[in-house]
Amino acid sequence: MRASFREQLDSLRGSLIVMGSDVTSGMRWATESLLEGDLAAASKALEIATTIRHCREEVEESVVELLVRQQPVASDLRLALASLHVAADFERMGALAEHVAKIMLMRHPVTAVPPEVAQVARQMAQIAERLAWKVTGVLETGDAALAAQLESDDDEMDELHRQMFEVLFGNWTHEVKAAVDAALLARFYERYADHAVSAAQQVVYLVTGVVPGRS
Amino acid sequence: MRASFREQLDSLRGSLIVMGSDVTSGMRWATESLLEGDLAAASKALEIATTIRHCREEVEESVVELLVRQQPVASDLRLALASLHVAADFERMGALAEHVAKIMLMRHPVTAVPPEVAQVARQMAQIAERLAWKVTGVLETGDAALAAQLESDDDEMDELHRQMFEVLFGNWTHEVKAAVDAALLARFYERYADHAVSAAQQVVYLVTGVVPGRS
Repeated sequence: MRASFREQLDSLRGSLIVMGSDVTSGMRWATESLLEGDLAAASKALEIATTIRHCREEVEESVVELLVRQQPVASDLRLALASLHVAADFERMGALAEHVAKIMLMRHPVTAVPPEVAQVARQMAQIAERLAWKVTGVLETGDAALAAQLESDDDEMDELHRQMFEVLFGNWTHEVKAAVDAALLARFYERYADHAVSAAQQVVYLVTGVVPGRS
Repeated sequence: MRASFREQLDSLRGSLIVMGSDVTSGMRWATESLLEGDLAAASKALEIATTIRHCREEVEESVVELLVRQQPVASDLRLALASLHVAADFERMGALAEHVAKIMLMRHPVTAVPPEVAQVARQMAQIAERLAWKVTGVLETGDAALAAQLESDDDEMDELHRQMFEVLFGNWTHEVKAAVDAALLARFYERYADHAVSAAQQVVYLVTGVVPGRS
């Protein structure tokens, strides 16, 4: 029974890998739409967010099935619940990419971001993508060491968040609307990173059975 | 066994009621701190957010215990998972109240909100509180009809969100900083409302066993 539980949990992990890969490309499309004014890229980000929402529902269904069939012990149960947490974080990350794309869509054909904002946003997007990619990598390879890097990536993100506000609160010569958009964008990238870090903690637990930070 | 599962689920519901009540007062303190520049109120909001985070962990632990002890059937399992969803939404709501208080703390002793923003923020806060209060009410009374009102409260919130942006994008005479704060505040109240609506759907399921929108 324990072996069969493992198998089903692995299949769940497979679904999470697909979600993680979607989460990564969702933010890539969203950022491209924002910085290049690319409408097709925005549609892609929206589509992917919808796919991710469905995937989360499927993961929840699979967990219910798994728990009903296997009647797991507490430690197995915690692993199943960890995958629910990861799916929830991934869903939010997809939605945050969607928010980025929607800011572009609201302002189109005007570009939402002035050059000094675009520069910071591009860096935030790169880190966001890297974080999502690493979480997915840990899911795929089981290499928990990769997860440890996420903290420093997240520190970089916080630093860029501060930079964005320095730009906004410095000598701002653009409209208030562009400042508001930039502040929201910074928040969306930062929250995306937070969810990646949160997902990574659960993923480490999922692949190693060890709660991060405890030995 | 089914009866004993019910009992444990009711005890879980009791914990959620306490959380819901904290979630409501957390936002009340946060808004008071924001609009009155009250530092003690801000500390209250932060304290409550921490309490709510602990409560969520306790709810998760209780669910694991419940599932291990009771080996429930699928429908019972879904009820247990619904309470996890509610606890997660409540935790986010507590964190969003904390964000409101933190904006006040960042700007103190300067007031973060100009009068025209304060007016909209006050109304958003009232609806936010009302939504949280109703969700808690449904948990307490099992009166699903109350939950149906949440949709129209949420529409009011969306309308106020639009109003806030009209204020910002109209004839804005204040600093960019105040505009950015107002946009973020509007987002915090709006997200709080979204989580209340999401929690309400799960709460209805929890108290009636019926998924809202399906008959």
